Amino acid sequence: MANISSIEGGITAPKGFSCSGVHCGTKRRRKDLALIVSVKECSSAALYTTNRIRAAPLIVTQRNLADGKSFGAVINSGLANALTGERGLKDAEEMAKITGAALGCPPGKMVVASTGMIGEYLPMDKIRAGIESASKVLGSSRHHSRDAALAIMTTDTVPKEAAVVTTLLDGTRITIGGMAKGAGMISPELKPWHATTLSFITTDASISAKALESMLTAAVDDTLNMLNIDGDRSTNDMCVIFANGEAGNEHLNEADSNFFSALKALLKSLTVQLATDGEGAKKQIEVEIVGAKDIKEAKIAARSVVMSNLVKAAIFGEDPNFGRIISAIGASGVDIDVDKVSLSLLTEYGTVDLMSDGKLLALVDDKVYLEARRLLGSPRVKIQVDLVKGKSGATAWGCDLSYDYVKINAEYTT
Amino acid sequence: MANISSIEGGITAPKGFSCSGVHCGTKRRRKDLALIVSVKECSSAALYTTNRIRAAPLIVTQRNLADGKSFGAVINSGLANALTGERGLKDAEEMAKITGAALGCPPGKMVVASTGMIGEYLPMDKIRAGIESASKVLGSSRHHSRDAALAIMTTDTVPKEAAVVTTLLDGTRITIGGMAKGAGMISPELKPWHATTLSFITTDASISAKALESMLTAAVDDTLNMLNIDGDRSTNDMCVIFANGEAGNEHLNEADSNFFSALKALLKSLTVQLATDGEGAKKQIEVEIVGAKDIKEAKIAARSVVMSNLVKAAIFGEDPNFGRIISAIGASGVDIDVDKVSLSLLTEYGTVDLMSDGKLLALVDDKVYLEARRLLGSPRVKIQVDLVKGKSGATAWGCDLSYDYVKINAEYTT
Repeated sequence: MANISSIEGGITAPKGFSCSGVHCGTKRRRKDLALIVSVKECSSAALYTTNRIRAAPLIVTQRNLADGKSFGAVINSGLANALTGERGLKDAEEMAKITGAALGCPPGKMVVASTGMIGEYLPMDKIRAGIESASKVLGSSRHHSRDAALAIMTTDTVPKEAAVVTTLLDGTRITIGGMAKGAGMISPELKPWHATTLSFITTDASISAKALESMLTAAVDDTLNMLNIDGDRSTNDMCVIFANGEAGNEHLNEADSNFFSALKALLKSLTVQLATDGEGAKKQIEVEIVGAKDIKEAKIAARSVVMSNLVKAAIFGEDPNFGRIISAIGASGVDIDVDKVSLSLLTEYGTVDLMSDGKLLALVDDKVYLEARRLLGSPRVKIQVDLVKGKSGATAWGCDLSYDYVKINAEYTT
Repeated sequence: MANISSIEGGITAPKGFSCSGVHCGTKRRRKDLALIVSVKECSSAALYTTNRIRAAPLIVTQRNLADGKSFGAVINSGLANALTGERGLKDAEEMAKITGAALGCPPGKMVVASTGMIGEYLPMDKIRAGIESASKVLGSSRHHSRDAALAIMTTDTVPKEAAVVTTLLDGTRITIGGMAKGAGMISPELKPWHATTLSFITTDASISAKALESMLTAAVDDTLNMLNIDGDRSTNDMCVIFANGEAGNEHLNEADSNFFSALKALLKSLTVQLATDGEGAKKQIEVEIVGAKDIKEAKIAARSVVMSNLVKAAIFGEDPNFGRIISAIGASGVDIDVDKVSLSLLTEYGTVDLMSDGKLLALVDDKVYLEARRLLGSPRVKIQVDLVKGKSGATAWGCDLSYDYVKINAEYTT
């Protein structure tokens, strides 16, 4: 078991990384451009959206990371540079070039990411001025990482950061830091070589790009890929990890189980932060499936519940309409024996069993219904379902469906 | 080409059917129990939800229709009799028995359907009294079919009825009538032997149960199965057809192309009515995909757009955020070449091309954006997408995502 400690901070918690976040003008007033840079070349791996439409910056990043090496990243928010054709591709390349020149790094070794409105060209004069001013205010303090986390936000209401320390199998103490954004169009399915939730992870461990990719893929599958806010999958989702080796460990060519556990803990923290700040979210929802036939079915069942508009609306209304949860699992095609299933509700106000061995307890006891209503007053709601089919489990995260989700998305471009 | 005329009325438009709709008490005040009965035994076929959890009335109906014969149906609204175990099954059987006794038909030849709240037992004393009073007010007028269509509603705001006449290949003039309900938990995928949208179709044609099932399956695949209101698939969806032979045509053991066309026209009318009255709907949405590689991809692409919460919220806000449409198709996994796609918006206020050969026209011309905003003021919005990949097409129907959808579903049980 890895010894993992959470610490304060974000992407500048590991040694040798600096960053900044400034306002350039792709958002109206708030910070909208971030830079990340390492003191030396990093091993890097990235996962990209499985949406068949991929925004220009993803294509440029994929090309720039072909040899698993990079120096850092440039990210703008407010405009996604998606559906922008040839001009969009040139603009993304130009972002890498300007950043390389400003930081004194090879332009072909830069990650480029964008998030925001689809189908509008970037104002390259503003982007250029933004990169130049951002390159002059780089630093490694907690304020710097917070500025970068603020600059990548779109409809997010709070920045998301996390940092953990652990000890590798060889005894070296290393740090992993991360930041993420994304409040809507969130139903990621990130795969190697395919990624608008953006996540940037830094570490001072020395690890090969191949080992980073395999650990990142496995960790994202159980965390970011189990997050669902609205069922819409973005053209710009991307998750990138940078490892600069400043911790001085023996170079890792294979996975290190302690590093993997720490990476997964960091990604879980970012995932929960993203779920809590989903567009319009009043309540964070966690769905844990146990007793599934296999992990694949456990994941499908868990995701089907956090994806259900009816379940999400019921939880917003603090209405214990738990038939909808079982119906959502049934609709997902997962093997479910309704005469055996158990379902519990767990919140900080207490725990109540709503269904046991296929019997809806609320049917026979009004007290159960009233207790469930009381527990749903909590801002965090956990639903646990035992399928009684096998020994596999999975957890998914999401949020409720509120009036504000509709408001935010009815008026996005206006 | 079949000569099909729409006429007024619903399930009593064909000869030999009577029906009624009364209040029994499974809804608070409104009508909530309907009966349909034929003057003689009907050939019958039914399609059921693909949700793994199937409500008790579906299991009883499947059993009763095993030989493809029935006399009619009993339907209650307000309570779904789903997740109700053994007691629910007995209650559904009891509904068939009481109805058989009241109508003088074999109880094993009755269709039983329920819709409403999941996870509550039926109040069988009220149901019994309701069936008995409904059996005393049966009739074949337009008022009677309207009463039945009202009695099967849940969150629907208006009843849905349609009727068509056509001439079979043998020259006999026949009539098909139908009624449907369903405003939420609507994402049907109805299959033979598997079916909360409820649809009941009557015809005076003489057709074998097997031919009915094959025509119903094909017609539903292009109509009801292309309807999506909220992505949630019910435990109670069912579509049943009754054919009593009163028109006197030569008995059909195989499909009749004219009958099939008329059946599809009727189902399309019901589907559009359901989409228009989706929970909280302010606008009906139709998505037509053309130029797809094959019909399967055309259907996936069309459904992905009407299912997207972000597209639905944008249309509610009359916001021409058309990148979201292309993103939704990309996320569905359909083969899409973003540099070739065309996209048009068609409403009763006019037509505008938003994307042509992969170029978002709104990018280069603010007039296009403003014209799109104006057209979105219409209560009916049609989106046409040409994938330029092949010659197949498909249409899907849905509605926008409004504050009222959230309100209705946040407060469903309370």
